[in-house]
Amino acid sequence: MISFAQKLAAAVREKQTPVVVGLDPRWESLPEGLRQPSQAHGDNEPVQRAAAVAEFCRRVIDVVAPLVPAVKPQIAFFEQLGPPGLMALGQVIAHARKRELLVIVDAKRNDIGSTAEAYAAAYFGPQAAWRADALTVSPYLGDDSLTPFVTAAEEHGGGVFVLVKTSNPGGGQFQDLSCEGRPLYRHVAEFVERLASDEVQAENQGTESDGYSEVEYGSVGAVVGATYPEQLAELRAGMPHAWLLIPGYGSQGGTAKDVAPGFDAQGLGAIVNNSRGIIFAHQRAEYAGFGPSRWQEAIEAATRTMIAQLQAETPAGKLVSH
Amino acid sequence: MISFAQKLAAAVREKQTPVVVGLDPRWESLPEGLRQPSQAHGDNEPVQRAAAVAEFCRRVIDVVAPLVPAVKPQIAFFEQLGPPGLMALGQVIAHARKRELLVIVDAKRNDIGSTAEAYAAAYFGPQAAWRADALTVSPYLGDDSLTPFVTAAEEHGGGVFVLVKTSNPGGGQFQDLSCEGRPLYRHVAEFVERLASDEVQAENQGTESDGYSEVEYGSVGAVVGATYPEQLAELRAGMPHAWLLIPGYGSQGGTAKDVAPGFDAQGLGAIVNNSRGIIFAHQRAEYAGFGPSRWQEAIEAATRTMIAQLQAETPAGKLVSH
Repeated sequence: MISFAQKLAAAVREKQTPVVVGLDPRWESLPEGLRQPSQAHGDNEPVQRAAAVAEFCRRVIDVVAPLVPAVKPQIAFFEQLGPPGLMALGQVIAHARKRELLVIVDAKRNDIGSTAEAYAAAYFGPQAAWRADALTVSPYLGDDSLTPFVTAAEEHGGGVFVLVKTSNPGGGQFQDLSCEGRPLYRHVAEFVERLASDEVQAENQGTESDGYSEVEYGSVGAVVGATYPEQLAELRAGMPHAWLLIPGYGSQGGTAKDVAPGFDAQGLGAIVNNSRGIIFAHQRAEYAGFGPSRWQEAIEAATRTMIAQLQAETPAGKLVSH
Repeated sequence: MISFAQKLAAAVREKQTPVVVGLDPRWESLPEGLRQPSQAHGDNEPVQRAAAVAEFCRRVIDVVAPLVPAVKPQIAFFEQLGPPGLMALGQVIAHARKRELLVIVDAKRNDIGSTAEAYAAAYFGPQAAWRADALTVSPYLGDDSLTPFVTAAEEHGGGVFVLVKTSNPGGGQFQDLSCEGRPLYRHVAEFVERLASDEVQAENQGTESDGYSEVEYGSVGAVVGATYPEQLAELRAGMPHAWLLIPGYGSQGGTAKDVAPGFDAQGLGAIVNNSRGIIFAHQRAEYAGFGPSRWQEAIEAATRTMIAQLQAETPAGKLVSH
């Protein structure tokens, strides 16, 4: 079976960019036209809103599918709408898969043992209600809360991104505490690297020993925010076998220069997410020229701009040259 | 508005016990009779299973409603069944509210800023899809990931339980790391205590100064596992204004003696959850006499036994005497 790490590398190479488009369909930010009540759904507000959210996300996907390797739906904005919202998430995931995008479900789930297995069953495998290529998880509960996700993911060619160093201003409150000689996030990073390198070793054992290893990255990765460029460099070095999922680009303040340390020399090893800055580009001053109805063109322009920024200022530029 | 802390104290006093029944409807453990396919739901397996899970939980609620103050549905087992499972959760919550039980949704949600607000909107307030009295949340992302939940909860008379020291074997991997002179879980506990005592101070400012304060606990509490009795005593002392939600009783190894340090002298300040040990009591050797069809009687017996154990061996015994 092809591992998630391999699928991700192939998709990044094919699209020649590490840009991930985050699907955070906040109701208030949806284009005006989509927020009009539709006759088709009666006057059930969550059903109305869920239908609009699904339509919005499908149209975003149609714009970005030729351009980027993956989308990252943020489940909170679907969950907020209740069961209709989560049915919409299923439709959005199906549409993204149809458009051959990898789907990283941003759920930050976490629980112990068999409860974690129940969560994992919702996201991995052919029976999953919301079939993800990868899932974000939160590490506070420790190793026996993380391994059930990893086991389920790897069984189905999926991946897991563990929160290590998050992009929010308060992220350091616990993550930066100095614990037994190094920050807490380093302890989590060491655990992620152990899981990732274990998988890489196991996979490479099966291959011919030709002095060249096909597999460099495992399917357990780490979330490391664009807003902390120094820690990004430190964590890239500390987790050589882990893909980094880098949020915080754009609206949260991260720039192309900031995320550059996340990549390896080939331009692999990191993917960079942008949510609001792309999907709600129609609200940004620089794309105001498109006007409210041409919001999909604003999305395309914002995506192309971010792709160009990363090509110019990070090792991701190497993806284009061959 | 009556705060969650006040509702919880009133409910514990009324039922004279701090026992919380955890609703973890693992499909494989459901009584045989409920796992039979029903004609009513066609051959859609998730819909079939969700209907059985809802029916099981409603019947559990009917048994325990006269006996305990609260139930704690574990959302993972509903989420595993997809949208039909989450619709079942809505029905289960509605039934619990009808039976005047407090509902603590065990979701361990966590995310940053406005994303946390979206999650909170799913669980608090009259528009919430799954209206909870309290929600469990996970702290790794720091203060700005927790306060949106607290704000939404308090606005609607709800509560939040933050993971502090969890009951699982691997819980210590990060939680016990010594960080700047004390374990990580103490740092989280200090933050919880700050939030809880801020609320208590604010509420008591409005009351007459008669040398007696009505409000002792805030609506931000902490999850502290029964499996670590020493830390439970330490954390009770360290968070004098926080309710403790104590999982890990029974199947996970925690005993009445183990949880005793979680209570204050009046028998308040802690609630003790038991999931499998109660709802799947029909599978336990000591209740085998009921046979498979009388599983509700096994649940009642197991609940009464746990209530008696806590009365005998913890300060919760004080709840009965007046």
